[in-house]
Amino acid sequence: MPVMTFPRPIITLLTDFGEADAYVGIMKGVMLGILPEVQFVDISHQVTPQDVQQAALILSTAYSYFPAHTVHLVVVDPGVGGQRHPIVLDTPHGRFVAPDNGVLTYVRLLEPSSKPFVLDKPCFWRTSPSHTFHGRDIFSPVAAHLASGVSPREMGSPLEQINMLPLRPLEVTPTAIRGEVIRVDRFGNAMTNIMRLSWVSEHELELQPLSVVPGLEAPLRIDARQTRVTCSWHTLDRIYRTYSEVAIGQALALVGSNGELEIAVNRGSASSALALKAGDPVTLHLLS
Amino acid sequence: MPVMTFPRPIITLLTDFGEADAYVGIMKGVMLGILPEVQFVDISHQVTPQDVQQAALILSTAYSYFPAHTVHLVVVDPGVGGQRHPIVLDTPHGRFVAPDNGVLTYVRLLEPSSKPFVLDKPCFWRTSPSHTFHGRDIFSPVAAHLASGVSPREMGSPLEQINMLPLRPLEVTPTAIRGEVIRVDRFGNAMTNIMRLSWVSEHELELQPLSVVPGLEAPLRIDARQTRVTCSWHTLDRIYRTYSEVAIGQALALVGSNGELEIAVNRGSASSALALKAGDPVTLHLLS
Amino acid sequence: MPVMTFPRPIITLLTDFGEADAYVGIMKGVMLGILPEVQFVDISHQVTPQDVQQAALILSTAYSYFPAHTVHLVVVDPGVGGQRHPIVLDTPHGRFVAPDNGVLTYVRLLEPSSKPFVLDKPCFWRTSPSHTFHGRDIFSPVAAHLASGVSPREMGSPLEQINMLPLRPLEVTPTAIRGEVIRVDRFGNAMTNIMRLSWVSEHELELQPLSVVPGLEAPLRIDARQTRVTCSWHTLDRIYRTYSEVAIGQALALVGSNGELEIAVNRGSASSALALKAGDPVTLHLLS
Repeated sequence: MPVMTFPRPIITLLTDFGEADAYVGIMKGVMLGILPEVQFVDISHQVTPQDVQQAALILSTAYSYFPAHTVHLVVVDPGVGGQRHPIVLDTPHGRFVAPDNGVLTYVRLLEPSSKPFVLDKPCFWRTSPSHTFHGRDIFSPVAAHLASGVSPREMGSPLEQINMLPLRPLEVTPTAIRGEVIRVDRFGNAMTNIMRLSWVSEHELELQPLSVVPGLEAPLRIDARQTRVTCSWHTLDRIYRTYSEVAIGQALALVGSNGELEIAVNRGSASSALALKAGDPVTLHLLS
Repeated sequence: MPVMTFPRPIITLLTDFGEADAYVGIMKGVMLGILPEVQFVDISHQVTPQDVQQAALILSTAYSYFPAHTVHLVVVDPGVGGQRHPIVLDTPHGRFVAPDNGVLTYVRLLEPSSKPFVLDKPCFWRTSPSHTFHGRDIFSPVAAHLASGVSPREMGSPLEQINMLPLRPLEVTPTAIRGEVIRVDRFGNAMTNIMRLSWVSEHELELQPLSVVPGLEAPLRIDARQTRVTCSWHTLDRIYRTYSEVAIGQALALVGSNGELEIAVNRGSASSALALKAGDPVTLHLLS
Repeated sequence: MPVMTFPRPIITLLTDFGEADAYVGIMKGVMLGILPEVQFVDISHQVTPQDVQQAALILSTAYSYFPAHTVHLVVVDPGVGGQRHPIVLDTPHGRFVAPDNGVLTYVRLLEPSSKPFVLDKPCFWRTSPSHTFHGRDIFSPVAAHLASGVSPREMGSPLEQINMLPLRPLEVTPTAIRGEVIRVDRFGNAMTNIMRLSWVSEHELELQPLSVVPGLEAPLRIDARQTRVTCSWHTLDRIYRTYSEVAIGQALALVGSNGELEIAVNRGSASSALALKAGDPVTLHLLS
């Protein structure tokens, strides 16, 4: 009889709780009481308070690098105690525990075979859950039970659809793709919503947008040398592979580590040098 | 013969070290050298430097959510190298390693059967401890030995009493309970020292203060609808259960996730909207 | 046949990624896919972006407190995707994975028997590594393989020398040692590059500089009472053992927890009170 080797359970945490208060530690204490052998990984606790869109984006860049049996716990929950439901999303590349407020929008788009469940079995929660901290009283115990082998089906009921955030679609013409800056990281690199670019040869890129874009036959082939990128009032001459291809202090457009069009400055901050911020328009011009 | 399954040791950390310097990592390195299988959980490292009162409060809201065998390591230690003693406090709901400077005040009040020990056995410390970093040289090795099964009695001598912080008592009259804001969290929610409130029926609350309050027969029953809360120059009409019971942007008083009277704004920041900060007076008026 | 008990693998992380973005979590996800039983310890992720010197210093104060089998992963990598090589440094007191940009300078000086290897075996990396995030695609998988037992020799080729940062040497005369402030910590304590001081008797210190200093016969014996420390335009009368030896609010010079000459204020901030910052000159005057 073969010995079953169950992989060590992993739970990641993504919240807007910050690290000054004890909220994150409290959730981990609750989970350790249920699943002592769990391995925690913090994704971020510095999501802007109640910014569901930002959390959805960060989650979408991170989850695919974890083993498939990982449970991702997301608590950015401005509607706590109100009408929104707690849910689990079961996918082949991870399971997600979160409020049904749109924070799983990108994961849902990236994982078309995912199955949502509404968490309606209080026996898997802490007794007498509070009205203000479901992260501690509902989401954490469910995440721990899920990571310990309880199936989503046992803790909830199948759900037809989950709430999705409205996504600003790309505007596409035969000669241009127009999007915007969606996030600036600690280095001042500006990430855009022109996403899912990959190099297919030395100079050629392929663009496979996340959702159907009117006017765009996907995937689109792009010659990186035959492009120009405009953002705010700046113009960048082509798409590069990495920072050091331009002089120190020079701005450039490149493909970021998650396949997004990124605006950066070699050994500097594009955000400072070009005065870029989330929401600024970015256009990728196709010259060929 | 039954197999003994010792629970996986857990050590939590609460300090004012911040996360920029290596101090926290160094303490973990020291503990891993003694107890390789330990599970660490960070409570917070962002206590305001040397603010013993703040650390005492954060600790009191967190420890009870951890398994009872957890060791809580607290290093907020402005008197390091001076006269204050290192201690262990042994309680049925966790063991605490800390300087004897009042940082265990609330735990001591909440755990009347707790037993303090002064750490006076240098054989359990790092050799030649420094005069400036007892967190690394005394507290961390003691926490690791404690978590690995060494008893407090082996590492120290029983102590009669520990140092307690002076607590600002509540002022109570037949029609009002007067306290103050003691902490503002990352969301701008203001926590008060009117603590240990719990819902006993749909509209009724019970208040069981932490210590004896002159003029207050405990526990006190309160009708949540027959209350008014004044803080700074604002008046809030009653005590609610959760944020979403009022309109978005509206201020409210509610029972926070640790049973404290809390002032908040639904999907906003009470701290910003009402200009609240620690020390501001808060009065709970009893109208019935 | 004896049972091999391999110690639990430990990987520490030191980066300039901050904790707001998912970069650190992503690296941990990659490593957990290779080595599920690993114990992570964060040293710091708040290195000033691209400040290799600062990271080198933090690393040098931390690594020696970890078990010798620990792998230290350092990703402060302004030249990512360019000419600099990824390396491993194998020492008797830890193994280090980092870009070859000088970030291992102090470790190399402190561990003269260390052996560097250039990482030139892509089979140990993620397939198709990006050009902008070698932390995820090269350094993390190598660190995980190293911690799981793969030898540096299997993953790279021996290297003669690694890149070293230029170190500002101490200036030494028969009556004075002149250095500078190199770091201010969260408490406002100023650490200097007059390092490796240790108490050898009640009043006597020994100074053993990190590298050969012209004019200084090492080790140097110093009578702590016969010293004066000047920094910026302030004069401090001698070297103390700990903060509480002077009045609250008073400035003092002492030996810091890593053996460096440190300028502090008892229960206050030397950085604020004396307006100290990195780069300020500090002189230790020898009066005897």
